[in-house]
Amino acid sequence: MKEIEEEWEHPKKRVRLTVAYDGTNYHGWQQQSNGITIESELNKALTHLLGEAFQVIGASRTDAGVHALGNIAVFDTTSRMPADKFSYALNQRLPEDIRIQCSDEVSPDWHPRHCQSRKTYEYRIYRGRFPMPVKRLYSMFVYSELDVVAMQQAAAYLVGEHDFKSFCQSGAQVETTVRTLYRAEVEEQGTDLIIRVCGNGFLYNMVRIIAGTLLEVGKGKLQPEDMQFILEAKARSAAGPTAPPQGLTLMKYEWI
Amino acid sequence: MKEIEEEWEHPKKRVRLTVAYDGTNYHGWQQQSNGITIESELNKALTHLLGEAFQVIGASRTDAGVHALGNIAVFDTTSRMPADKFSYALNQRLPEDIRIQCSDEVSPDWHPRHCQSRKTYEYRIYRGRFPMPVKRLYSMFVYSELDVVAMQQAAAYLVGEHDFKSFCQSGAQVETTVRTLYRAEVEEQGTDLIIRVCGNGFLYNMVRIIAGTLLEVGKGKLQPEDMQFILEAKARSAAGPTAPPQGLTLMKYEWI
Repeated sequence: MKEIEEEWEHPKKRVRLTVAYDGTNYHGWQQQSNGITIESELNKALTHLLGEAFQVIGASRTDAGVHALGNIAVFDTTSRMPADKFSYALNQRLPEDIRIQCSDEVSPDWHPRHCQSRKTYEYRIYRGRFPMPVKRLYSMFVYSELDVVAMQQAAAYLVGEHDFKSFCQSGAQVETTVRTLYRAEVEEQGTDLIIRVCGNGFLYNMVRIIAGTLLEVGKGKLQPEDMQFILEAKARSAAGPTAPPQGLTLMKYEWI
Repeated sequence: MKEIEEEWEHPKKRVRLTVAYDGTNYHGWQQQSNGITIESELNKALTHLLGEAFQVIGASRTDAGVHALGNIAVFDTTSRMPADKFSYALNQRLPEDIRIQCSDEVSPDWHPRHCQSRKTYEYRIYRGRFPMPVKRLYSMFVYSELDVVAMQQAAAYLVGEHDFKSFCQSGAQVETTVRTLYRAEVEEQGTDLIIRVCGNGFLYNMVRIIAGTLLEVGKGKLQPEDMQFILEAKARSAAGPTAPPQGLTLMKYEWI
């Protein structure tokens, strides 16, 4: 009787995973031939758990070294395991630098990249005379004095709907480089500066280029009002350098 | 002429190093035969820099996995290099998880363990449903609900001069187990709890046993007023378990 029950086809469901990870030891999110990625570890854990090949769909393809408190992935399954139990089952099979924070069921047509969402990123800067070892994997070290007020004024220029082409790594293929930022702020937390941006979407390397550009403002190499010209230039060369990956953390996704 | 100058014996001076490190990859501070330590890396960098064998004297012999923003080490040298330049020269020769924050000259009889000082430690606890990868190396994960007010009340019992024998790993050889705590507090920072203690000295594993005992209070297994009995018992078995090392950071030394 039990055996027959287990062979019943269960209705297919789509499960959403909220995934936190320390990106230090990974070649980013997206599966690739050379090196382990967050995506490949998730696929492996699912295959181990359910005994069939899996290919999750991710929301944000973070770069090597970038961290996340809440990236999103979905997969479809006919498993009878309730959606909220996947977090426990997968965490037992994942390395300790990847942890599912939540698993829930979504409608079968819900796609993490084709729906209205609000994403929040933080870029962390540590200011000191010398690098601080316990912060090295999660922040960018800056020796220079930074004009925080100027950085805050510069960040304000980015809020709203703009063509962020100047803040997109050249070569990226996208339909449009217009995005809306709901927030762009610079917060001082002791020795640390947090650049926090929240928007409806981000271009390739956009947050790291914003951070690199705001740092140029902080060092006095650019003025806050230069942000307007950089936006209008619509050219990568107009903006500052791309800040290193380890300072960046994808904080959360919200569905709107 | 230059050669003769270099052979002049320069007066011996004692140099103090303020040392920050991420303890994750080390077998603690103290040099030992099996495994690399903070002390052995400092000795190696000094030998590399000055071409002779060195043995620094450390202030606090932190355990494997414990971190520091400001541990202290001293060494004697006849090198003509000004004391404040050692920070730069050593940082070029140290692995990136050890960084000298400051180097200065102290009097030849100054010994980091035989002088009046105030040490501040922080023990960090992360509260969540699942561990958070980016916090795993620098905090203890706790799933349970914690009564923070009870923990704060319990911590207050530890302030002042007490015999902390119950909070000392048994087997440790010390002249006296009496120490003075100037501060013992529990601070809430979002998902994190910080147990912060400042005192004139700490016994072996003392902060980790304090953290483990305060957690028992937070979980309701002990009452705040039990701290009085634990102190009076003068027995390790009276206190709670030793909390894991990665939550502990030596914040600073102050000389009084």
